[in-house]
Amino acid sequence: MIDLPFLDEIARPTPTRILMLVVDGLGGAPHPDTGKSELETARLPNLDALAAESACGLTTPVLPGITPGSGPGHMALFGYDPVKYLMGRGVLEALGSGIEMAEGDVAARGNLCTIDDSGLITDRRAGRIPTVESAPVVELLDGIDVPGVEVSVYPVQDYRLVLLLRGESLSDAITGTDPQVEGAAPLESQPLAEDALKTAKAVNRFAASARAVLAGRERANMVVMRGFSGVPNLPDFGASYRLDPAAIAAYPMYRGLAQLVGMKIIRTGGDFDAELETLESVSADHDFIFLHYKPADAAGEDGDFDAKVHWLEELDTRIPRVLATEPDVLVVAGDHSTPAIMAGHSWHPVPLLIRSRYTRGDGVGQFSERAFRGGSLGSLSAQNVMLLAMAHAGKLNKYGP
Amino acid sequence: MIDLPFLDEIARPTPTRILMLVVDGLGGAPHPDTGKSELETARLPNLDALAAESACGLTTPVLPGITPGSGPGHMALFGYDPVKYLMGRGVLEALGSGIEMAEGDVAARGNLCTIDDSGLITDRRAGRIPTVESAPVVELLDGIDVPGVEVSVYPVQDYRLVLLLRGESLSDAITGTDPQVEGAAPLESQPLAEDALKTAKAVNRFAASARAVLAGRERANMVVMRGFSGVPNLPDFGASYRLDPAAIAAYPMYRGLAQLVGMKIIRTGGDFDAELETLESVSADHDFIFLHYKPADAAGEDGDFDAKVHWLEELDTRIPRVLATEPDVLVVAGDHSTPAIMAGHSWHPVPLLIRSRYTRGDGVGQFSERAFRGGSLGSLSAQNVMLLAMAHAGKLNKYGP
Repeated sequence: MIDLPFLDEIARPTPTRILMLVVDGLGGAPHPDTGKSELETARLPNLDALAAESACGLTTPVLPGITPGSGPGHMALFGYDPVKYLMGRGVLEALGSGIEMAEGDVAARGNLCTIDDSGLITDRRAGRIPTVESAPVVELLDGIDVPGVEVSVYPVQDYRLVLLLRGESLSDAITGTDPQVEGAAPLESQPLAEDALKTAKAVNRFAASARAVLAGRERANMVVMRGFSGVPNLPDFGASYRLDPAAIAAYPMYRGLAQLVGMKIIRTGGDFDAELETLESVSADHDFIFLHYKPADAAGEDGDFDAKVHWLEELDTRIPRVLATEPDVLVVAGDHSTPAIMAGHSWHPVPLLIRSRYTRGDGVGQFSERAFRGGSLGSLSAQNVMLLAMAHAGKLNKYGP
Repeated sequence: MIDLPFLDEIARPTPTRILMLVVDGLGGAPHPDTGKSELETARLPNLDALAAESACGLTTPVLPGITPGSGPGHMALFGYDPVKYLMGRGVLEALGSGIEMAEGDVAARGNLCTIDDSGLITDRRAGRIPTVESAPVVELLDGIDVPGVEVSVYPVQDYRLVLLLRGESLSDAITGTDPQVEGAAPLESQPLAEDALKTAKAVNRFAASARAVLAGRERANMVVMRGFSGVPNLPDFGASYRLDPAAIAAYPMYRGLAQLVGMKIIRTGGDFDAELETLESVSADHDFIFLHYKPADAAGEDGDFDAKVHWLEELDTRIPRVLATEPDVLVVAGDHSTPAIMAGHSWHPVPLLIRSRYTRGDGVGQFSERAFRGGSLGSLSAQNVMLLAMAHAGKLNKYGP
């Protein structure tokens, strides 16, 4: 959608301010005992009151039935086609670990694993080796030299790591080395394009060195890699919408995503209260702010219905602070649903709310999946949310005579 | 949508008749004092009764958040991709003035303006010079000769005019001469494509002659032009849907749009009552009629809530006459919303109603934006309205075996 051919003709800078609060994993699904979703179970007086004076609806992040990762979920909310601009696992893993990637870099997700004497994988996760034990192993790997390529290895957690390649004419068009089954040997990386031979060779050389360096260890004596990917060439968010955008997010991955689309990253603390303090101090300086709320998603991923309810209620108590920053347009959206009963992301449509001087309420008195079905925004693609926000902010001229 | 690759395979001529009543600027928004939109405020017994026996829904003209001009709004209702088939301002202005354009012609919107001795624009609208005073000035411009190109200048109203270029190998890929600010000199037109040099030269020659011809006048002593555009190459509406279509519209622009897509233009009078007389006399002769109702939009553009309510009520009293022509399928649609509170077009979804032998009502008892949310047609792209109308008329065969 950000490729809308006429966007630059109709986007108009104005002093109005848009605040987009993305509640990660916002949507849920009914608990089997009560028939009520997390949002319907939670006490949300502030969000309910907000709904009553807003335009409400439900977004589909990618397509009906498609469960998005955090990458596509956010890209769609920012107005990018999440299929065209899909980011690879390596990039997302790097962003999630706070690793800065530059154009031309290639990243991969790595697993420490255990192989037997004949080189076959006996444990893909090296016994879920704890971070305290894996950190020195990762340090050994980080010390490996590959001629012509700068190789860095970063710990993530337990057996997980990130491999980052930096150098001239690298390519992410190579196959991974992770066979993703046990009983098989790590694979050789192969080029999928002519100009990818150098990268595949470097990866294979790294893998051979890793095997040598880790030989003799009882577990975590090898590494396998997948999801080789580079930073996609993304249209600039601010230039496309003619905005001066900023991002406030406690978690590195969301800062990373925002940075990739060209938003200014505002330094903040480790939780939502810290984010709110940051918001309060910079809200007047930007005409677009992306504010991220993480804990509800984490609770949903854990399959903890009550915890998700709790974190939605916690968010609700902060809504007055959000409103006190007086955005001209407030968008409350989610990147995807994370029903606790599924203990993971899902494809379910996600509540969306837009409040501006043009909204008077849709007769929707509850902030929930069910109530929002009756809202004036209906069902829409998440890719269109930015256009609506811009329209409500008076930042879009009429299209066509 | 008219590019639907299989449309010609499934469209089937039948004797059934479709009447598409386009209520310009149909949708609105709640008045801040009452919380009710124009449609909700108006007494609309006939439209309400019609809604009760129809299929109802809401159309999005272009995309959520995008405010369309009349051109894209109508093109979408006729089933054309409004982005692919965007018409330029010059073309629309010409159509709106009743100027017939042929393929290869290039039109521009012109302003009479006032320049000072050094050639800088002091008033972009020449003091909003009234038509009675501007008409002889336009006549002078119309007399200008440019070798190799037939130049015509038509008055529109006050300071506004249309420039029409006709000749061999003209191009609309040229820049305008209107700097759109005061204190600057009129721009030279520049070619944006190789084959556009001739046209740009002709425009600059015309501008130079205009300056000479108007020199000595105190105001309206120059002309600036923008929106150079030619007639787009549009698929034929009748051939695409296998219909014999006609248009009844009191306003020239809507007749012009209909003519461009190949509809037969039925000569009519200057208001909706005249249109209805025309409808009554030709309704049996065409299997598709586009009938245009203008006044509600004009009131909305003026920001006059009560006037918009009035013109909706006026329309309502004419619904029995519309129904008396006994169309097999009646479509009541809008090209876009024009909320009086915004005094202009808007992005808001537009009520849509389809009545045929297959509809029995959706339990929707009020003709309004809010009530139609609950209708069986849901939210849909305006580009799909023609397909639904064709389906209800029994004019579409099954697609695929």
